[in-house]
Amino acid sequence: MERLILTLTCEDRPGVVATVASGILQCGGNIVEANQFEERVNHVFFMRVVFDVDPNKFDRRLFLERTKASEALRNPRIKLKREDEKVRVLILVSKIDHCLADLIYKSRIGELDMNIVAVVSNHPEDKLNVSLNLRSDYAIPFYHLPITRETKAQQESELREIISSTGAELLVLARYMQILSNDFADEHATNCINIHHSFLPSFVGAKPYHQAYDRGVKMIGATAHYVTSELDEGPIIVQDVENVSHSDSPERLIRKGREIERRVLSRAVKLHLEDRVIIDGNRTVVFDR
Amino acid sequence: MERLILTLTCEDRPGVVATVASGILQCGGNIVEANQFEERVNHVFFMRVVFDVDPNKFDRRLFLERTKASEALRNPRIKLKREDEKVRVLILVSKIDHCLADLIYKSRIGELDMNIVAVVSNHPEDKLNVSLNLRSDYAIPFYHLPITRETKAQQESELREIISSTGAELLVLARYMQILSNDFADEHATNCINIHHSFLPSFVGAKPYHQAYDRGVKMIGATAHYVTSELDEGPIIVQDVENVSHSDSPERLIRKGREIERRVLSRAVKLHLEDRVIIDGNRTVVFDR
Amino acid sequence: MERLILTLTCEDRPGVVATVASGILQCGGNIVEANQFEERVNHVFFMRVVFDVDPNKFDRRLFLERTKASEALRNPRIKLKREDEKVRVLILVSKIDHCLADLIYKSRIGELDMNIVAVVSNHPEDKLNVSLNLRSDYAIPFYHLPITRETKAQQESELREIISSTGAELLVLARYMQILSNDFADEHATNCINIHHSFLPSFVGAKPYHQAYDRGVKMIGATAHYVTSELDEGPIIVQDVENVSHSDSPERLIRKGREIERRVLSRAVKLHLEDRVIIDGNRTVVFDR
Amino acid sequence: MERLILTLTCEDRPGVVATVASGILQCGGNIVEANQFEERVNHVFFMRVVFDVDPNKFDRRLFLERTKASEALRNPRIKLKREDEKVRVLILVSKIDHCLADLIYKSRIGELDMNIVAVVSNHPEDKLNVSLNLRSDYAIPFYHLPITRETKAQQESELREIISSTGAELLVLARYMQILSNDFADEHATNCINIHHSFLPSFVGAKPYHQAYDRGVKMIGATAHYVTSELDEGPIIVQDVENVSHSDSPERLIRKGREIERRVLSRAVKLHLEDRVIIDGNRTVVFDR
Repeated sequence: MERLILTLTCEDRPGVVATVASGILQCGGNIVEANQFEERVNHVFFMRVVFDVDPNKFDRRLFLERTKASEALRNPRIKLKREDEKVRVLILVSKIDHCLADLIYKSRIGELDMNIVAVVSNHPEDKLNVSLNLRSDYAIPFYHLPITRETKAQQESELREIISSTGAELLVLARYMQILSNDFADEHATNCINIHHSFLPSFVGAKPYHQAYDRGVKMIGATAHYVTSELDEGPIIVQDVENVSHSDSPERLIRKGREIERRVLSRAVKLHLEDRVIIDGNRTVVFDR
Repeated sequence: MERLILTLTCEDRPGVVATVASGILQCGGNIVEANQFEERVNHVFFMRVVFDVDPNKFDRRLFLERTKASEALRNPRIKLKREDEKVRVLILVSKIDHCLADLIYKSRIGELDMNIVAVVSNHPEDKLNVSLNLRSDYAIPFYHLPITRETKAQQESELREIISSTGAELLVLARYMQILSNDFADEHATNCINIHHSFLPSFVGAKPYHQAYDRGVKMIGATAHYVTSELDEGPIIVQDVENVSHSDSPERLIRKGREIERRVLSRAVKLHLEDRVIIDGNRTVVFDR
Repeated sequence: MERLILTLTCEDRPGVVATVASGILQCGGNIVEANQFEERVNHVFFMRVVFDVDPNKFDRRLFLERTKASEALRNPRIKLKREDEKVRVLILVSKIDHCLADLIYKSRIGELDMNIVAVVSNHPEDKLNVSLNLRSDYAIPFYHLPITRETKAQQESELREIISSTGAELLVLARYMQILSNDFADEHATNCINIHHSFLPSFVGAKPYHQAYDRGVKMIGATAHYVTSELDEGPIIVQDVENVSHSDSPERLIRKGREIERRVLSRAVKLHLEDRVIIDGNRTVVFDR
Repeated sequence: MERLILTLTCEDRPGVVATVASGILQCGGNIVEANQFEERVNHVFFMRVVFDVDPNKFDRRLFLERTKASEALRNPRIKLKREDEKVRVLILVSKIDHCLADLIYKSRIGELDMNIVAVVSNHPEDKLNVSLNLRSDYAIPFYHLPITRETKAQQESELREIISSTGAELLVLARYMQILSNDFADEHATNCINIHHSFLPSFVGAKPYHQAYDRGVKMIGATAHYVTSELDEGPIIVQDVENVSHSDSPERLIRKGREIERRVLSRAVKLHLEDRVIIDGNRTVVFDR
């Protein structure tokens, strides 16, 4: 048997569930997990279905054609993939590498089921803070793409080439401290995840932990979101926080924040890898159970 | 239009979702919310569907008959109710009344959509700690059913009569410090919710906050669960915790615990009222989003 | 024996702890709890000491004089009070009364050790959502002070008179949906606590839960803070959050928020009543263990 | 200037704080951080003081002698160390290495200020799940000490020799799945930290995540504690939890648990390294802010 993941967005009208479920049944499929959500304001329907099929009998093309042609489904966006297909991931990083180290570790033990096809940094490999020896220890290609205000366009073309040559399907900004151009952000509006080191929309911009200290907040957080051309905006996937107190200096906030950041980012990546996140304008639908 | 809630448990076999969804569509219904869960070990299927029907056209009996007769559904247990039907609730309490006060308040502002048909205590009303004046201020009937080891059977018969005469559909033990007889517990295995003032299975039995203090735990919690004849066992519905420290005396743990208890209990009651909890042996399936 | 609470702020220089501790010892006092914090940026020292004295022997005036005269203490601000002195509290509210109901309940069971000397609302008593019957059930004076843009100054004078006649020492804005004048806010910069229904600094201003829904955040929160003339600014005392998801409508966010708001506000009030909060510019030092 | 950390436990009597604070002042020291706790049941006093001294003028021996000789301090236990002294740490592990990897990473970026003097496993290095290449990549000595029921005594002697030869001051059981002998546990009652993969005292013994699944709990946790000869007992240092649901299989609980375990263990190690934990019988006093 082969396990497939279907995600579907369409107008919310009677009969969607019946159509999809009957379509799967007709093709000999067996639903093993399903989530759906009806957004009431704009009447949009979101669905994620995991189902098993006999790969010798299941006709993927026919199934998709029939589903799309169904009367019940208006303006559907459909994605269908094998559960065991590994997503090809490119990670961007600056100097701070706790998120990178965590993603690599979780990839190696199988918790994050992905292929890291490249790590790109605007700093040379030996400037990352633990010097992971990516090439020798992990056989992960490392690219140093330095960037200045003047060379941003050029650097992004080089990045595009690496994305293209590696076949990267997901970009993860794992504390990459550079602002992407609007064009680049727009090109990757659905497959580029950033970790912002604050509980957005609080403390947008630089040095959020110093801002948090100055404001005297009693909790700090981190936010993983899809990147848009608006800095620190974009659909939020995961957020989490921890308690802090008056005795936490900005330096201690940074340290506590590291723990939250890597947790939040790796959760968001996992949800994306399992096709559990569907973008809904500037919001996300997250089917996490 | 009329909104209905269907909950369904059956063997997990292909076609269940298609059958239910098509059945609803056939009756002119429109699904507005749906959750399902496939328990993989024993292959049990759980479903909750909220759908709108035209009450003049929808034939409830026909719908249920057809659904039950469907080939895809093996050994189904089905419940169908109108979303706006108010559940009749009887609350049992001893002296400590923070949970009771919270349930009454939330019922009054419409957050808990229920009818409190009676409050029963083994103490007289003026021994409850804030003297809520249930009868005069809230027009809620209050019954004082004192209990001793010798009179337990007698007291439970009186309780059964009150349940019967008030038509109570749900019993809530809101810090009721008496152990129910096995018979009584068995009779109410699916409609009697207790709040236990610990993070079960830690600290079963009496004085859990003192036990927690003695063990030196760094978090305390509370557990809302369905009652079974085994004391402090029974399927768990909601749990929550808070941080504590060495400086929290048993008295402070009790105070902090009150906050957790009422929060946990009212969440569990709300989930039950909305038919979001399905019992699965000694576990629960909770469809909370 | 009599238990006293001393709070002290001064310049951070060697010898402060020794001076205070020796001073207490000299007066026959026994320290039972002590917290201190040295703010490293501006070198400010904060201290809270609880100590027991024999009331027949302890000379309060002499103790304070000696302490203030000590060389080690530069620019000290000192407060000394009996632990069992009940603070006189005035609560302001608009229509939504879950925070008010919670404060009253906790006051009645002794969890919040205070005297509620008055409740003031810009709406008549029967417009509060559960009609608490404050006067008859709780013997708490209720004042209806309606307000319009034109009558704000007049209304605030009436409020000042009530504060004066009741001897209120602490004002609690328990979902009071009116903006205080700058003058009034400045007068009460250290004794007026507000609950803001968002995780500040996110979503300042009106309708924070709708803002939170629109931004698609995955957690919502509440913030208790001292009031300043800047709206939704002021030193933060307590914050807390809960997880939410795409399926939470603004209405559900409001409901979940109520639980957080009353918890956060009553914690902040308790900390203030126990002299555990010291204002440090736009931040607070909170000695909560 | 040199920064020192003093921890002190003694009988709780008047004058302790004054004595310690005056003693530090007399030696020209300046207190920069101080915490104290008076345990009310057994009248025990706990204190942690951080203070700066001029190393050319401070006479450590004289200071300790005077402090111990003071009348106010009955049965004192005192520890004094330089803040910048790196603790020598030996880590024990079986096959599962997420906690080990986290401790090594945090040690390398300076978050955990310690020297890892050895890693000991009952399995060979290439059986650890990510093959960290401890020797080549990190220059950390690795010892494979296989163990069977018959060879436990022998294995523990070898372990003692490694402890002795490396000068290890702290043992960290980072998912070491072997039970220590009573003698060994007793020898290391104050310097051996274990991570237990449950919210103790729930689910002691083997396979706690499977136990948690069977019991149907709605939260899982982890516990870091000092080791005693009683299995899964011992003073608790840190606990934390996360929400789970009916849809979390034992395998998913294990995965979620990994995140909690490494967080809880590294927090406990950090608290120990900074002398913020004082054992109080079967409880701990943790000065974490």
